[in-house]
Parts: sequence; C-alpha cells; structure tokens
Amino acid sequence: MAISTIGLDGDDTLWHSEGHFAVTTERFIGLVEPWLADDGASESTSDLLVATERRNLTLFGYGAKAFTLSMIETAIQVSGGTITAGAIQEIIGWGREILDHPIELLDGVVETLEEMVGDFDLFLITKGDLLHQESKIARSGIADLFGAIEIVSEKEPDTYRRVLNRYGALPEQFVMVGNSVRSDVLPVIKVGGRAVHVPYHATWELEQPDSIDEVSFPTIGSLRELPALLRGWRN
Amino acid sequence: MAISTIGLDGDDTLWHSEGHFAVTTERFIGLVEPWLADDGASESTSDLLVATERRNLTLFGYGAKAFTLSMIETAIQVSGGTITAGAIQEIIGWGREILDHPIELLDGVVETLEEMVGDFDLFLITKGDLLHQESKIARSGIADLFGAIEIVSEKEPDTYRRVLNRYGALPEQFVMVGNSVRSDVLPVIKVGGRAVHVPYHATWELEQPDSIDEVSFPTIGSLRELPALLRGWRN
Repeated sequence: MAISTIGLDGDDTLWHSEGHFAVTTERFIGLVEPWLADDGASESTSDLLVATERRNLTLFGYGAKAFTLSMIETAIQVSGGTITAGAIQEIIGWGREILDHPIELLDGVVETLEEMVGDFDLFLITKGDLLHQESKIARSGIADLFGAIEIVSEKEPDTYRRVLNRYGALPEQFVMVGNSVRSDVLPVIKVGGRAVHVPYHATWELEQPDSIDEVSFPTIGSLRELPALLRGWRN
Repeated sequence: MAISTIGLDGDDTLWHSEGHFAVTTERFIGLVEPWLADDGASESTSDLLVATERRNLTLFGYGAKAFTLSMIETAIQVSGGTITAGAIQEIIGWGREILDHPIELLDGVVETLEEMVGDFDLFLITKGDLLHQESKIARSGIADLFGAIEIVSEKEPDTYRRVLNRYGALPEQFVMVGNSVRSDVLPVIKVGGRAVHVPYHATWELEQPDSIDEVSFPTIGSLRELPALLRGWRN
C-alpha cells in the first residue's frame, strides 16, 4: 500500500536536545565531585543519576523538570545530605536553561520537510513535557509544515495505534522517522507500520532498547536521505 | 442551536486536586517557619510561594513537578540559603505524594456523566502535566465515558477553538463545565460557546480571574444540577 503519512520525532530528530542534557550532566558531575572519592567517581555519579531517573520515570515522566528533580535527589544522595541550598539552586537554574534554550534545528530539516510536504501528510509525534514541547514546536518555525502535531507521554505500540486511528491513517501507509530505536522504530513496526532510524550522536541511557531481535529497519545518516529512501519504497 | 457537546474540566471539577496542593502548602509553611520572624510569617510564606509559582509559570507550566520546584526555590529564598538537603528531600517527597495520590471523584460525577452520555458528546478538557493527567484519567474509571480527551498546557480562547475544530464541533453547540472562571468559563464565552461554573471550595491563587466584567454565566453548586440546567437550555 502506498505511503501516505510520515511521522517525525522532535527531540534529536528535528532539533537538538540530548546535547543540552549531556552538557548539564557534565556540570552536575563537576558540582558533586567534591563529595566523591577519587576512584572512578564521575562514572558512578552518572550511573547514580540514571538510576534515579529510571526510578522516577513512571511518576515524573520525561523532560527537563523531571531531570532537574532527579539531579537534586542524586546530589542529596551523593553528598550524604550535606549538599548546600546554593548548589541546589544552581541545579534548578540549569533546568531552567534547558527549558529556555533556543531551538537549533538539525542540518537539512527545513529543506527535507519542504520537499516532502507536497507528497505526504507530515505528523510530528514527540514525547516529553507538554508545555516544553509546545514551546519548542512554536519556536521551531516549522510547525506549519505538519498536518498533525501529537505530544505524547510515552511511545508505545498503543500510542501509535491511537494517533493513526485519530487521523484515519493505516499502519501500512505510515512511516515513522526518529533517532530512538526504542521509541520511534520498534513500537511502530509492532503495529504494522514502517520505521526509519536516524541516529543522533548521543542517546540517553533510558532510550537504549532492551533488545532488537529479528527486526530489520533502514538507518540513514541524515534526514536529507529520507526522500530518496521513500521514493524507493513507493516503487 | 442545539447543544451537542459538553466539555468537562478534570481537576476540582471531576476529581479532587487543589486540596492536595493546599495541604502541601500548609506543610511547607510549617517546614520553613523556623526561618521566619513571628510577625504574620505564614501568610508571607504563602505569598512568596505564589510569587515564585507565578514567575515560573511560563517556563515550568502547571502541575506537581512545577509546584515542587517552586517550593524548593521558595524554601531556599526564605531560609537565606540555609535550608538543609533533608528538608529539600522532604519537599520532593511531597511532590511525589501529590503525583501518586489515589483519585477521588467528586460527589455525583459518575451518575451525572452516565446520565448525560446518551444525549451529548462528552469531552474531557484538562490542563496540566501530561503524564500526571493521563495517569489520573486512567485511574479515574470514567475515561470510557468521554468521546474525546484533550490534555492542554493552557486554556485560552485559541485552545478551545483548536479542540472544537479538531472534532468538527461548533462553539454554539458547545457547553464547557468547570471550577475555574479563568480557564473554563471566560475563554469559552469569548469563542462563542457557553459555560457553566461549578465552584470548588478552594481556588489556587493563579486561577483567580483578573476581572469578570459584563459576562454572565450560570453557577451551580454541584455537577448533579447540570442535566436539569442543560434541559432548560435545550427548550
């Protein structure tokens, strides 16, 4: 069946995101360093932070506010409760910076979307904090290219079923494109759609897939390669 | 034009919410009390917290995570930076409790919705943190009664225009029902719909409307009174 609808992920597919979290994590490690012994300290702080994020995920969800609260909890834990209020205020300031950061689109995004918009319905399907995602979309300058914008709290097979159903699109006509195998690729294949992986140079630990067995999907180096790939699929 | 669609707000219209924030605010005032002088201390702590929430609103949005971050910032401010990490961990624990609290529906909600669902399309239009709202809806036991569920980051005239447009409903056929004059009543009247105010016993400071001039709308004491009111409007 002919492809009619292309779903695109937002963070690290259309605009940079993980880099801001990675830079903040480095700062965080620097902040709590004084409380740590010298033996592989920075690695274990990072592991502790990821463990806190994982523990908080079902209640706090994704995004910068959840990340900020997890940093504060990890700092309290690592410091044995001796971290100062000033350091915690600094952490909150970093969270605010992530939320307020200017949008930087990835290379080729505008040209590629403009090339595709005449041939396909473009859906933006993005995960995370509602207000922050809306704010990023509004500031991206590309919102008008999308026929549908869906901000979701999690990307599971049912999420994609619900979104496709809402717009009367069939999975066989749908291709999802994104940087996360766990969120953008595997659940879409599970519901009968197709998916294209566009890796970003950094992947958050909690976006690493548990396993990718028996599933094959194309990987492209840049969104610029997408139109040619889709043309190949159409023939 | 006949009424076809009833929009219902979630927090403090269908289920209790503000009470949890109010109880947490009282605890918060107790926590920072030792850092305050005796002259009207608790009132000014509450004012400072509201001021912090107001300042953070455009970046942090609504909900328990934003509230938790604002409490931490206010505690640091009130204590002159001497609040302990243990106290901050306690504040985060309160935020977690709000997010994890069992859903308590308001009196008459189930019966009233079940009475109306045969005659109208029921839309749940609720504001706040995406994951928390989804979690509350899932746990409410009444999700199946709604033909549409929309979680929005802000309730402005454009929000209602967008939602009605998405489902092909006309403002003249739409009645919104909720506890917030600012969010559920005024913007709906502005786009040409009707609205019913069901006050809750507590209203968050930031939900107080700036002014209500020249606008009239019915107020009911309980959702139970809604079907009779709608019957009156239909004749």
